[in-house]
Amino acid sequence: MDVRQPRPTPDVALAARLFDELGRQTGSGRGVTRASYGLGEQLAHRIARREAEALGLRVTTDAAANLYMTLPGTGGGPAIFVGSHLDSVPVGGNFDGAAGVLMGLAVAAGFRQAGLAPPRDLTVMAIRAEESTWFPASYIGSRAAFGRLTPEELDGVTRTSDGVALGVAIRAADGDPDALRRGEPQLDPARIGVFVEPHIEQGPALIARGLPLGIVTGIRGSFRHRNARCTGSWAHSGATPRAVRQDAVAAVAALVMAMEEIWTRAEARGEDLTVTFGQVATDTAEHAFSKVAGLVAFSLDVRSQSPDTLAAVRAALPALLGRIEGERRVRFDLGPLSGSEAAAMDPATIDGLAAAAAASGVPATAMPCGAGHDAAVFARMGVPTGMLFVRNANGSHNPEESMEMEDFAAAATVLSRFCLDFGG
Amino acid sequence: MDVRQPRPTPDVALAARLFDELGRQTGSGRGVTRASYGLGEQLAHRIARREAEALGLRVTTDAAANLYMTLPGTGGGPAIFVGSHLDSVPVGGNFDGAAGVLMGLAVAAGFRQAGLAPPRDLTVMAIRAEESTWFPASYIGSRAAFGRLTPEELDGVTRTSDGVALGVAIRAADGDPDALRRGEPQLDPARIGVFVEPHIEQGPALIARGLPLGIVTGIRGSFRHRNARCTGSWAHSGATPRAVRQDAVAAVAALVMAMEEIWTRAEARGEDLTVTFGQVATDTAEHAFSKVAGLVAFSLDVRSQSPDTLAAVRAALPALLGRIEGERRVRFDLGPLSGSEAAAMDPATIDGLAAAAAASGVPATAMPCGAGHDAAVFARMGVPTGMLFVRNANGSHNPEESMEMEDFAAAATVLSRFCLDFGG
Repeated sequence: MDVRQPRPTPDVALAARLFDELGRQTGSGRGVTRASYGLGEQLAHRIARREAEALGLRVTTDAAANLYMTLPGTGGGPAIFVGSHLDSVPVGGNFDGAAGVLMGLAVAAGFRQAGLAPPRDLTVMAIRAEESTWFPASYIGSRAAFGRLTPEELDGVTRTSDGVALGVAIRAADGDPDALRRGEPQLDPARIGVFVEPHIEQGPALIARGLPLGIVTGIRGSFRHRNARCTGSWAHSGATPRAVRQDAVAAVAALVMAMEEIWTRAEARGEDLTVTFGQVATDTAEHAFSKVAGLVAFSLDVRSQSPDTLAAVRAALPALLGRIEGERRVRFDLGPLSGSEAAAMDPATIDGLAAAAAASGVPATAMPCGAGHDAAVFARMGVPTGMLFVRNANGSHNPEESMEMEDFAAAATVLSRFCLDFGG
Repeated sequence: MDVRQPRPTPDVALAARLFDELGRQTGSGRGVTRASYGLGEQLAHRIARREAEALGLRVTTDAAANLYMTLPGTGGGPAIFVGSHLDSVPVGGNFDGAAGVLMGLAVAAGFRQAGLAPPRDLTVMAIRAEESTWFPASYIGSRAAFGRLTPEELDGVTRTSDGVALGVAIRAADGDPDALRRGEPQLDPARIGVFVEPHIEQGPALIARGLPLGIVTGIRGSFRHRNARCTGSWAHSGATPRAVRQDAVAAVAALVMAMEEIWTRAEARGEDLTVTFGQVATDTAEHAFSKVAGLVAFSLDVRSQSPDTLAAVRAALPALLGRIEGERRVRFDLGPLSGSEAAAMDPATIDGLAAAAAASGVPATAMPCGAGHDAAVFARMGVPTGMLFVRNANGSHNPEESMEMEDFAAAATVLSRFCLDFGG
């Protein structure tokens, strides 16, 4: 690229103004609430559409009511897609999801204001219904865009807040559930040259390292036991010798420590892994400070970028549980298994984003992504896919999400540079 | 003792009939419910009094409404006291407490039916309000008998089930709270030659060893933190690296394992100890399977017959907690401390009970008592005190308490022999 070529500057002020407006319009006293296909998400889509029209972008929607806002490019090859979702968890933060859409708009606005066009069509996509807390199904909007939503989901999955069926909610948002039911794809993967999802980081990895930007190497897959139990035997705390106790608390503690040991050893081998026991509780109907616990409910969430690592941990569980059961006279029942597949990000896209960061003078680090994102759907559909993580304090899914606009601006500069260089 | 001397046979059939009647009259659908100074305890005292009067025992009550049923002895020295309590926990078992009173009555009836008198007055005492689940204060009836109930307790402690103040409840049961408020002793320790409390075992120690009878060596003291907390930081399970996690579940698991290690080492040194984390729970308002837990509430109950062992464990806690806090970036707050003193049983009484068991051909073992009992109050008042444990399955404080009348009969035979030989 000619170094003297003029470069667009993303319109970060526009994004800041839209964050404020989003926060005001979808505020729920504490934090924001943008229900999938509900009022908050509708308001957010209306704001995005209005700005896109003001910028002169080509605006369309699909049968799932996903919103596409396109700045035409100079070349005719597969388009650049930048996108994320506009819904939020209940009482969530203002940045999770919205940051990706507003960064796309800021980049498109920057091109417009500089009188420049990207080498390819640049489509900013506002994706529907990513937060599965509303409709318990994963990646509704992006899967629907590829014709991958099932009739069973459209009819059988209902919104947790009001019981409305997914198909009904889509129709109420001017979508076409009948087309989705027929499995009609709304997007052709072959016509998407790259999908980039900018997102705030959800753990304090960048905060801890003092870096503004992360380039995601892969989205972790998972296996989960949300409703596991350990059954022992209730007994008097002062009267029951250790040798005959069937202490469910001690058994679960032993399991937590043993899984941490597995995690430590995997990390030492350079493997990617997280292990979380997020919910642990002795049975409230029976427990007492003076009773050995006879029943503990717990959850187990294991994630890795590597399907092999996930499989190895799963394979190690039965022997581990059996050993603890034998030693401690308890019984484990892990309950139903659920989970998601890992999704690798595209190496060329990772390289392109890293090159754009280097060229922009923005310090960045490669990092795994622990949570699920629509980017996983694009990756699985064969679209070259990448994610940019913006430094963010206090995690996500809570009103305390805290992204600095300075970091957002740095990420937008990198994204703009990436778009300028892509397929050129 | 002349081996040809006739020996009384405890009236176990009487006890069996009274257990049945107690269970029917105080049954609460599942198990029995005999509230302290409430309906169930009143009914139980009425049954005991009626039987004592039918046996021609001398029946009195004191200002705390404790019930004394005395068979006059041949000698005039300090009396033999046999007793326990007649209240139960809510939805409790029929044997905890009642077994001691009914065994006393069965022994007295045996003397009566054989036309024999014990060498000393034999007083069967039905003690009030031992189960502190009703009025959160320990050993109400026995402490009141020795003038050790405080005005603050009489006025300030209220029944958890209905909010009635302790003094009011005592008056409703025909007691005299004013006399108690003045600290007037109802009993003179010097006039009690021995106190024996028969009780079902509350852990499966005798069950495990296949023995019908235990002779208690001491009542374990305790220290307790009923409302302890570990504070970490809520974080995304997939997005938060291990190195920056502040995982309260993992920290509490590490504490549970470390305390078990302390317990194991103490046992290896021959020390008496129990350690129990009976209640453990991630905060239900915030927890999720996909969140690293930022808050865990837990209880810790540590017991030993040895005040030195208890003190050593307490002394070891701060360094242990500090180490886990440092390693895992969490904070522990153990909350209020409560507990009870250990009480040693009287060596001569232990020997006397062991001799009676041997003479009766009943296999017995020495064992610690893990739970608190009125016997601890008698011991602290300087009364030579012992306890007999009767084999019992399924622990106590639940409807599944399961004492065989055959084992009760064996214990009653030992107790009867002990009474016959005591001070003769």
